[in-house]
Amino acid sequence: MVTAEIIAVGSELLTPSRLETNSLFLTERLNSLGILVERKVVVGDREATLSESLRAALQRSQLVLLTGGLGPTNDDLTREAVAACLGRELRQDPEILNHLERLYERFGFQMAENNRRQALVPEGAEVLPNPKGTAPGLFLREGEALVFLLPGPPRELQPMVDDQVLPRLTRYLPIRRRFVRHLRVASLAESAVDARVESLYKAQPQVETTILSSLGIIDLFFTWCGRDDEALASRHLDRLVQQVRQELGSSVFTDRQEELEVVVGRQLLERGLRLATAESCTGGLIGKLLTDVDGSSRYFLGGVVCYSNELKQNLLGVRPETLERYGAVSAETASELAQGVCRLTGSEIGLSVTGIAGPTGGSDEKPVGTVYFGLSSKGQAQVKHRRIPGDRESVRMRAARFALDWLRTELEAFVS
Amino acid sequence: MVTAEIIAVGSELLTPSRLETNSLFLTERLNSLGILVERKVVVGDREATLSESLRAALQRSQLVLLTGGLGPTNDDLTREAVAACLGRELRQDPEILNHLERLYERFGFQMAENNRRQALVPEGAEVLPNPKGTAPGLFLREGEALVFLLPGPPRELQPMVDDQVLPRLTRYLPIRRRFVRHLRVASLAESAVDARVESLYKAQPQVETTILSSLGIIDLFFTWCGRDDEALASRHLDRLVQQVRQELGSSVFTDRQEELEVVVGRQLLERGLRLATAESCTGGLIGKLLTDVDGSSRYFLGGVVCYSNELKQNLLGVRPETLERYGAVSAETASELAQGVCRLTGSEIGLSVTGIAGPTGGSDEKPVGTVYFGLSSKGQAQVKHRRIPGDRESVRMRAARFALDWLRTELEAFVS
Repeated sequence: MVTAEIIAVGSELLTPSRLETNSLFLTERLNSLGILVERKVVVGDREATLSESLRAALQRSQLVLLTGGLGPTNDDLTREAVAACLGRELRQDPEILNHLERLYERFGFQMAENNRRQALVPEGAEVLPNPKGTAPGLFLREGEALVFLLPGPPRELQPMVDDQVLPRLTRYLPIRRRFVRHLRVASLAESAVDARVESLYKAQPQVETTILSSLGIIDLFFTWCGRDDEALASRHLDRLVQQVRQELGSSVFTDRQEELEVVVGRQLLERGLRLATAESCTGGLIGKLLTDVDGSSRYFLGGVVCYSNELKQNLLGVRPETLERYGAVSAETASELAQGVCRLTGSEIGLSVTGIAGPTGGSDEKPVGTVYFGLSSKGQAQVKHRRIPGDRESVRMRAARFALDWLRTELEAFVS
Repeated sequence: MVTAEIIAVGSELLTPSRLETNSLFLTERLNSLGILVERKVVVGDREATLSESLRAALQRSQLVLLTGGLGPTNDDLTREAVAACLGRELRQDPEILNHLERLYERFGFQMAENNRRQALVPEGAEVLPNPKGTAPGLFLREGEALVFLLPGPPRELQPMVDDQVLPRLTRYLPIRRRFVRHLRVASLAESAVDARVESLYKAQPQVETTILSSLGIIDLFFTWCGRDDEALASRHLDRLVQQVRQELGSSVFTDRQEELEVVVGRQLLERGLRLATAESCTGGLIGKLLTDVDGSSRYFLGGVVCYSNELKQNLLGVRPETLERYGAVSAETASELAQGVCRLTGSEIGLSVTGIAGPTGGSDEKPVGTVYFGLSSKGQAQVKHRRIPGDRESVRMRAARFALDWLRTELEAFVS
């Protein structure tokens, strides 16, 4: 059994306000190869402490992953500490330097002298490219042990682990294979999903089932781990996945690792329909999610962030009587907003959200979390109403996802 | 300077789904006494690993806090490992045993044989009562060092720290106090900030300076630790902070821990101005950020997500000639968008963004990352242009923050 040790570097991780979270991602990926994490260490930006931790780790573990401390500032010294600890010289890598210089030039910045430190490479180390940032990763073999130096920002670390680290682990270490299926569900509670599928996955204990929930999205992972061949794994996994899909029906929005807004985008494109949004309480979040997807201009026209009643009325044509009689947070307003944004933009489909995200603004009749949704096409509008739990951020994200998932199920029906 | 090491014990803390969080609370309490946490270690429920970690910690630190592994089950072995590591015998404490027996009796349970292990006390240890659970804490002095064994559940650990641990720290250790100042900067690169202030903070090595960067926001922390009184700390910190502020000028947007959108909101409110946005490449992200703030309806009217050229033209009045001659991503379009959204909404201030977020859509003339910003008031518009590095997500977030920061500096000038 291969064991690993994770050393997270950064004085900010020793303050009361910052948690070290990269190790969760790393553990998940290492576990997927059957590698256990035996120890996690957090140290500050001090060379002595770091060297000592690395030396101790190398005496115990075949695999050591260091995260953080690869930035351009003077308190970033993982490179230097590792080189000193392993007795290797640091050399400026002309290729990295050149790449950094071109990167800075392209954006019209003068490269600071400090940035040159990011081009330092310990003797014998392999450079791991970082498409998401300036600090490259490094890979060293020290006797039997493998040592990886990875950047601290999760958005830089994660792709580097998947693209650069995992392939090297399977090459150099004796590991098991792992097969995973992944289903994603929206607009259901985690406990409801679990109650419906529990008997199915319990009947297949060889498959490890994990259910995770995050602000309106439920992820179901089905994992097969073993030395066995792919055919056997697929047979077991496919049977369970098929049963779960049958039970959850159209609540499952994908079996690929894709976001709701990607699925909705594909549906719109396939049907040749364009979408416009009228967002009140979500304030632009649905537009932000839709335009997270490259190429979304082919089906998303845009819309109105109608945060004020003035814009609801003057721009989207919500009638003053509607606002007065039912209020801005009401089924009637949601309906007129969805129709209004179609009229204003010429879009085939209009999607609207109006609600009370909190923490202030609630009342007995309409407490915080009250949200109305409108969906308009061909001059007609449907309306939905939900009471959404959580704080301001949760209410807004859940509302945005509920709206997109409603649109998804309506679009599905649109062809069939 | 007293430094501490925290050792969290529990195999569940080495899985992909559980974060160790007790150390944040402990760090906060220790920092309040001027004690720095130099290292945090997470190990599983294995006696050898635990002993080794404790031994190493005692060689380095005057204070070691172990959390977890004091429960009644067989995988709880912190007591045994610590006793073995320090060469002390374990003895059953009749008082604890009696207390446990009465506790179980009171709740009508039969005490299991395993629970008797919770009454084991290493020779010379002091027992720390646990009013919230069954596992008492333990306190040992080993040479110059202090060792605390604390229960894992936060609701048991936290009162024990405040009531039992802190008083012992002030009794046995030369305690120092800790003072922090925090500045936040936008629209500058981390390396540029560092280059400009490096000589200032290096000239004051008694103050620990940390610089962190995240998608367009740079955080600078200045920390003073010492036996001295608050006046001395403030003198040193205030001098450095003042020098840094002078060097960075209006790039510093706050010395409180607040977001850019909060500062902008306050400025708008103070000046009685309302804002509307016209977002193309950011797709609603600026609206989302502004409305993250509760009460933002007092100064944010809303705006248009003008993702398509149709909306730019038909809704915001960008002239067809402008789009044809200069393109949607141009200074001219940014200017007309900002003016258009003022006209459309009646807002005093209009803020616009149009750019190429990538990964597709770039050209030689306008590569990915090219973004134009427009700011309109009183019928006039100003324009800025930036080349923003990074992937789609980074370009969009940096662009949104750049836009907000530009608005901030303009609003500052507005009064002065």
